[in-house]
Amino acid sequence: MVRAADGRVVVSTDLLVEGSHFRRDWSSAEDVGVKAAAQNLADIAAMGAVPTALLVGLACPRDLPVVWAREFTAAFDAECALVGAVLVGGDVSSSPTLTVAVTALGDLEGRAPVTRAAAEPGDVVALTGRLGWSAAGFAVLSRGFRSPAQIIAAHRRPTPPYAEGPVAAVCGATSMCDVSDGLVQDLGHIAAASAVQIGIETARLEVGPRLQDVGRALNVDPMRWLLTGGEDHALVATFPSAASVPGAWTVIGRVDEGEGVLVDGAAYPLPGWDSFRT
Amino acid sequence: MVRAADGRVVVSTDLLVEGSHFRRDWSSAEDVGVKAAAQNLADIAAMGAVPTALLVGLACPRDLPVVWAREFTAAFDAECALVGAVLVGGDVSSSPTLTVAVTALGDLEGRAPVTRAAAEPGDVVALTGRLGWSAAGFAVLSRGFRSPAQIIAAHRRPTPPYAEGPVAAVCGATSMCDVSDGLVQDLGHIAAASAVQIGIETARLEVGPRLQDVGRALNVDPMRWLLTGGEDHALVATFPSAASVPGAWTVIGRVDEGEGVLVDGAAYPLPGWDSFRT
Repeated sequence: MVRAADGRVVVSTDLLVEGSHFRRDWSSAEDVGVKAAAQNLADIAAMGAVPTALLVGLACPRDLPVVWAREFTAAFDAECALVGAVLVGGDVSSSPTLTVAVTALGDLEGRAPVTRAAAEPGDVVALTGRLGWSAAGFAVLSRGFRSPAQIIAAHRRPTPPYAEGPVAAVCGATSMCDVSDGLVQDLGHIAAASAVQIGIETARLEVGPRLQDVGRALNVDPMRWLLTGGEDHALVATFPSAASVPGAWTVIGRVDEGEGVLVDGAAYPLPGWDSFRT
Repeated sequence: MVRAADGRVVVSTDLLVEGSHFRRDWSSAEDVGVKAAAQNLADIAAMGAVPTALLVGLACPRDLPVVWAREFTAAFDAECALVGAVLVGGDVSSSPTLTVAVTALGDLEGRAPVTRAAAEPGDVVALTGRLGWSAAGFAVLSRGFRSPAQIIAAHRRPTPPYAEGPVAAVCGATSMCDVSDGLVQDLGHIAAASAVQIGIETARLEVGPRLQDVGRALNVDPMRWLLTGGEDHALVATFPSAASVPGAWTVIGRVDEGEGVLVDGAAYPLPGWDSFRT
């Protein structure tokens, strides 16, 4: 039984399938546990809610070591504990394909839920959290490298800015989502749901020295990771004015009448989803 | 967003994996949709709650026909609509193994949740809903037969007595669960959680003419299906007295001090879980 003090709950569900969303040779059981929790906790945070309870379905190959499931669960629990959420139920089944199904519930604490559908022309677009790190880590692993450690760790274990979701809601965010598919693509979801155009400026996105180093080593423009890389679970939101943007957020663009997403005033070519996954 | 008018929600989650929980050559997409919804709705009903909202994660092989997913979802929705519940979210992913992950939320309408842990010596045990039909259908299908149609249909599409869960709660049920693993095994869960002994009498379990016919045809004692067959999602509960048992329920036994489950006064040999599945 889950408390829902304000008479409503927000809910979210996600599947992680081995081979599509994680690889056991790249990620430990703990890594997968953190990631499975984090992406669902970030979904709840992006509605402006505080995660309260999670359920996990685990479909395991018969030869999965018991220690894998134990380490997965311990790491999942620990990630939930960061935000005060608890694992309240689950199911275990056998399957040829290791699959993790997570559902998260959240408490709006009396606020209206923040959706993707209420961005307004004139709003500013702002971002908080890491962007492009997971994609850079994926690129590094894909080419057979195992360093730099901090970039690889960012791919294995996202660190979403959970607390900033409720903060944004309190500050009047008109729309919000977590960056799970890539910044341009996720802003496209907001633009479509709100029937607006969203423009962002790459000059406002900071590519730190680490991503620049990795970009140079792999001969990739790191800005591409920031614009198209998902799975860091940064939060992006629209606010009625620059003055309403909370301190931990950076303004990266604005909302106008129209449709779609413009990067520095032009459409940005997106890779197909599949081309970016294992 | 899901309303939770009484400030609490009950939740339940289940996985259905192709090959373990259903076979596409035995069950249509609609059958799997009904079954996936029914087993989760029954879980919520067994807590004495009314199901309100469900989420579905669908992991699909790349060659799964789109029509399969569409028919699955339509049947899932229709089963939920029977009890006034709605599908509020989901996720779709690709996977080599067709997997359905369902989470259900329910409303206690101000009542205390009925658990498995509060059966008391002196309580009576009562049952409502079909028992053994799904197991008989499974036995028929396993031996290559495709009739009788009504028995096969019972395996493909359970018809749990959803409304009786809240009725039992209102009438003071001290413990309850749905029969998903088999009557003896599920009563064993109540006995263990409540630290009591549960005794049932086979003379009180009605084996109808259809199950007798199938039993004769397959040379199986149909009582075994009633005692060990899961997946009909009948409801079994304990009540403080025979007088408190609701009209649609049948008294089948009683609760005593002790431990375990007795059938006609003796322990009942249970098959291993695996021996009963594909």
